[in-house]
Amino acid sequence: MQTIRLALIGFGNVGQGLTEIIADRNDNFAKQFGLKFQIVAVSDIYWGSVYDPDGLDPVRLLGAIQKGEKLATIQAAEYGWDATTTIEQSGADALAEVSFTDLKTGEPAAGFVRAALKQRMNVVTSNKGPIALHYPELSRLAAENSVQIGFEGTVMSGTPVLRMGSEILKAAGVNRIQGILNGTTNYILSRMEDGTSYADALAEAQDKGYAEADPTGDVEGFDAAGKVVILSNLLMGTEIGMDDIERSGITHLTPEDIRNAKIDDRRWKLIGAVEKDGEKVTASVQPVPLPVSHPLATIGGATNAVTFSTDLLGDITLAGPGAGRRETGYALIADLIAIYNKA
Amino acid sequence: MQTIRLALIGFGNVGQGLTEIIADRNDNFAKQFGLKFQIVAVSDIYWGSVYDPDGLDPVRLLGAIQKGEKLATIQAAEYGWDATTTIEQSGADALAEVSFTDLKTGEPAAGFVRAALKQRMNVVTSNKGPIALHYPELSRLAAENSVQIGFEGTVMSGTPVLRMGSEILKAAGVNRIQGILNGTTNYILSRMEDGTSYADALAEAQDKGYAEADPTGDVEGFDAAGKVVILSNLLMGTEIGMDDIERSGITHLTPEDIRNAKIDDRRWKLIGAVEKDGEKVTASVQPVPLPVSHPLATIGGATNAVTFSTDLLGDITLAGPGAGRRETGYALIADLIAIYNKA
Repeated sequence: MQTIRLALIGFGNVGQGLTEIIADRNDNFAKQFGLKFQIVAVSDIYWGSVYDPDGLDPVRLLGAIQKGEKLATIQAAEYGWDATTTIEQSGADALAEVSFTDLKTGEPAAGFVRAALKQRMNVVTSNKGPIALHYPELSRLAAENSVQIGFEGTVMSGTPVLRMGSEILKAAGVNRIQGILNGTTNYILSRMEDGTSYADALAEAQDKGYAEADPTGDVEGFDAAGKVVILSNLLMGTEIGMDDIERSGITHLTPEDIRNAKIDDRRWKLIGAVEKDGEKVTASVQPVPLPVSHPLATIGGATNAVTFSTDLLGDITLAGPGAGRRETGYALIADLIAIYNKA
Repeated sequence: MQTIRLALIGFGNVGQGLTEIIADRNDNFAKQFGLKFQIVAVSDIYWGSVYDPDGLDPVRLLGAIQKGEKLATIQAAEYGWDATTTIEQSGADALAEVSFTDLKTGEPAAGFVRAALKQRMNVVTSNKGPIALHYPELSRLAAENSVQIGFEGTVMSGTPVLRMGSEILKAAGVNRIQGILNGTTNYILSRMEDGTSYADALAEAQDKGYAEADPTGDVEGFDAAGKVVILSNLLMGTEIGMDDIERSGITHLTPEDIRNAKIDDRRWKLIGAVEKDGEKVTASVQPVPLPVSHPLATIGGATNAVTFSTDLLGDITLAGPGAGRRETGYALIADLIAIYNKA
């Protein structure tokens, strides 16, 4: 039995989802993989910070939040460490970087990831910013320090799309990736097909908690573009950035566009795509009127999906949840298992 | 660079597909995985047998078949070995068992697999018979001899459904598997939705080479049942056989059934299912009128798909080719890479 000591930077939805899974499933993981996860530190800018070298009880961590109490209310050895101190002093084996995402600079999360890698900690994260903006650098830094960085949760939450592309389909020769990578826009487009206006569909998505108060990141395709950068850099060997994505969102689509597509047996979907032609790779995010027979045309609502086109196997489509606290928490666990089960 | 010496029992569609991939892609596999595949023996009851310790040229093997010539026409060290001699004398590292399948006894293929495992050869196969009927025994025999047996190609050709269930989703807790596992019946049902009669749709499927002259194995659900047994024994830890599957085929479905489902926004699909409820596992193959919103409802024609229901991640659906010479040949390569890339 190997115990994996974890430090969490961030204790929002994903951090709590990860902690729930550890509380519920640690015995299963021990039986299935010989691995036991122990949270030794949590540092969150709102909920506060706790550290205990003997491990923090996941049920108590969650209990505090449920009561609306700061983490300082639970038993621990140290309180109040900031993120950097937590990374430097916790002696954790792995960092779960689950603080807020920023697609313009990737900071401060990218700095936390760098600090952890330099400390020779493995890193798992669902934070798009650092990976979309700095993956080539972070991947080299991990290699230099003989540690690994897992980021399955940055694309389609726990749906194993990155592992599928990077490991399982590697021998098949992936030459194109097309995906519905943003649940908010897919939900809005599905509702518009039912006759709802763009404004009403957006309001509904905000009501349901899919869309942020400022929906620009979703509806203008920035979120999907970040995921396309990640897919391209990991699976096509590029070193592209956000500016290399030809990007357009869904805000200019009219009810008439939707109706006309329907008459033509087509459905508008916001498609993120990466295509390899010899050494040339092109990447884009744009609304596409897919024929209803296309495997992505029937992916509705908040479900996400990716179709890998391969040299040897034709098209392989993977569909699953695109978001969710448990689903994304699971991505971090799957990354940790992939790292430590091999070692 | 590691050279993997292969012996092929059977040189029909799948054996030829495997050989084509080796001819086309060996340089890629060397670069990507440090593995080089070398065919040292082929034994086929129709095309004859060749053996050469220095390797047989895959292009020449395929060239003979294309010209309709027996394998004895190409340069080799030995000719005419039967399957057993090939397994015992070829000194191959791995056996690709790709002879014809028999879902009643699994023989003679199961005997070849046993002989190879006892010789401490790894085995890869796309042959449903031995795996559906004898997996628990063969799996123990492999473990006793410290070798492995790969059989991705027995379910959905190269679409990585077994690896998905057994490795990638292991931590998520798979509690139900539902799949469209037979391309012939799915093709027939798709055509019946377009108004074609069962008899005409079957004749079309036979024309296109999807269905055998005797279609019983497909249309009565035996082929799908064999795959359900494989999924259940590998992924749910059962030791069930063909008789444990509650099975019914598509022959009793009438045009009226199809029409009524359509009115109800449903589509008939032949669904293979395995469900776990505590320690109890139930397995079945039967036509089900799925609501059109179900992820399997839109899988049309010869495409196959499986939906895994999981404790932590909800539903994950994997869709891809269900058959094909290259697609199934790829399954064997993927199994070999999984075996030797780890070692």
